[in-house]
Amino acid sequence: MKIDMAHGSGGNQTTSLINDTFLKCYGNEILSRLEDAAVLSVKGDIAYTTDSFVVTPMFFNGGDIGKIAICGTVNDVAMMGAIPKYLTAGFIIEEGTEIELLESIAISMGKAALEAGVKIVAGDTKVIEGNGGVYINTSGIGEIVKPGVSISNCREGDVVILSGNLGDHHAAIMSVRMGIENNIASDCAPLVSIVKNLIDDGIDIKCMRDVTRGGLATVLNEVSASSGCGVEIYDKNVPVSEEVRGLCDILGLDPYYMANEGKMIAVVPKIQAEQALEAVKKSSYGKNAAIIGEIVPGRGVNAITGLNGVRALDILYGEGLPRIC
Amino acid sequence: MKIDMAHGSGGNQTTSLINDTFLKCYGNEILSRLEDAAVLSVKGDIAYTTDSFVVTPMFFNGGDIGKIAICGTVNDVAMMGAIPKYLTAGFIIEEGTEIELLESIAISMGKAALEAGVKIVAGDTKVIEGNGGVYINTSGIGEIVKPGVSISNCREGDVVILSGNLGDHHAAIMSVRMGIENNIASDCAPLVSIVKNLIDDGIDIKCMRDVTRGGLATVLNEVSASSGCGVEIYDKNVPVSEEVRGLCDILGLDPYYMANEGKMIAVVPKIQAEQALEAVKKSSYGKNAAIIGEIVPGRGVNAITGLNGVRALDILYGEGLPRIC
Repeated sequence: MKIDMAHGSGGNQTTSLINDTFLKCYGNEILSRLEDAAVLSVKGDIAYTTDSFVVTPMFFNGGDIGKIAICGTVNDVAMMGAIPKYLTAGFIIEEGTEIELLESIAISMGKAALEAGVKIVAGDTKVIEGNGGVYINTSGIGEIVKPGVSISNCREGDVVILSGNLGDHHAAIMSVRMGIENNIASDCAPLVSIVKNLIDDGIDIKCMRDVTRGGLATVLNEVSASSGCGVEIYDKNVPVSEEVRGLCDILGLDPYYMANEGKMIAVVPKIQAEQALEAVKKSSYGKNAAIIGEIVPGRGVNAITGLNGVRALDILYGEGLPRIC
Repeated sequence: MKIDMAHGSGGNQTTSLINDTFLKCYGNEILSRLEDAAVLSVKGDIAYTTDSFVVTPMFFNGGDIGKIAICGTVNDVAMMGAIPKYLTAGFIIEEGTEIELLESIAISMGKAALEAGVKIVAGDTKVIEGNGGVYINTSGIGEIVKPGVSISNCREGDVVILSGNLGDHHAAIMSVRMGIENNIASDCAPLVSIVKNLIDDGIDIKCMRDVTRGGLATVLNEVSASSGCGVEIYDKNVPVSEEVRGLCDILGLDPYYMANEGKMIAVVPKIQAEQALEAVKKSSYGKNAAIIGEIVPGRGVNAITGLNGVRALDILYGEGLPRIC
């Protein structure tokens, strides 16, 4: 059965869609109350964010739009030193979408939410003209357990840890779009376990940021701008898988500007660098983590090449790959 | 200047759009930190919700998509007995959209947020192929000041108050789409003042619900289903403006199924009915409020006609008017 405009009417068919698809796949005692808003108890300060997802194709090696919609928002919340607790999910669905496809997405959201330890507590469904596309917005709330984590906190002498290989999500999406057969899977994953490990191990985290659209170069430029510092990273320390590196060589892609969906940086005091690295590596999503560079005087981001050359990394200009997330 | 795919890249152009449009029109000290998530202090339990907005045309008599995007979510939060505090705003923009148009929308959002007493504290921007369309998702958080308000609380003997004329938003959108010239304006408005008045006046509010897609008939059916009760309303008590009534007569529309964006019902104990009505009427958005019916034994919703006939009102089946909000 396909979605038609009546599924967005707020009436009978909307109710059926909510009950038979969304509640079935990720319902819980709060969502199923179907009030105008969820009523929640939260402890202490909260982190609150939103993200919309327009990725195409909707299904790819390593994930789908549903998994990204959960992980993306969960990760943004976690980056503030918070444990993600509650999400909302708003669907904008083009008519003609198969309800079965929507169910696959919702099942994937349910699984990802379970792994990330969050509940989807409110939702909304709209239908627009079109040809089977699905857009998802999620927002998320987390309870802050490590206050003061901020992109403006980085200081000379701090080190930059990257949680794993760059470019997997970008390469996976690009491969399916170009019909290139390979084993590259999106890294789409919730990073809550990494954040928990850092906090539990007493790391004095200065800043965390997930590395998504715009890639590592853009994130590090944001750190530089917000903290008023320079960032120096060492090419040889930056993990990229053999297969992604091969694809980059063929297509002329730069891993520093490629999108990821399960990678983050943590900036920590140098004295805790090794301890923090171990904490990140304890999570399966951080097993390839590395100390990739440090905060230095000045402004901007530089990569030190294998030959000790210096290459300036600017913020992404233009479009990396449209509809990557 | 027009939006192109690079405005959704997460890089340089996305930053420009955020700084020159969104921060300029509704920035505040939290949003301008540009962290992955906003850090907030909230008191007590919270109400949390989301809504997406796909209304077409985007500008109409009485409002625009920006104003609706704020009011719709603010109202959903308020319906739980909460004072709305913080919103997120996620934009999905079709390429080709004029940045000036986006600015008009953002200005409207800023104004509506100011009136509703909320801050937009987090946002996201995505760009998709297309032809100048804009979709907005907002989520919202409020602090609950009147706990226990729920659609499942209504009991025999309670009365139903409607805050004003039915059908204005629906009629305004329909008129512009059909090229009918009239003075009908959308009722799009934040209902926070009405909710505050009810709470401040000590009304033992059982349930509140804003009357949007699906119309009053659908909302009352939700009350009936959740509370396990019947609802009886009197046609003669239900306020509809002369002009909307005229349009309904011509086009065969039923005000009970028409969408609104600034109307709500409150179900209150009969003993407080008049006092509650006065409280609602104190707000300019409630000046046409009326006691329209009561909770009765049984199930389902019935309208008592002028001739004392009984007409069953079912939940909306099919599509009222696509892309009404």
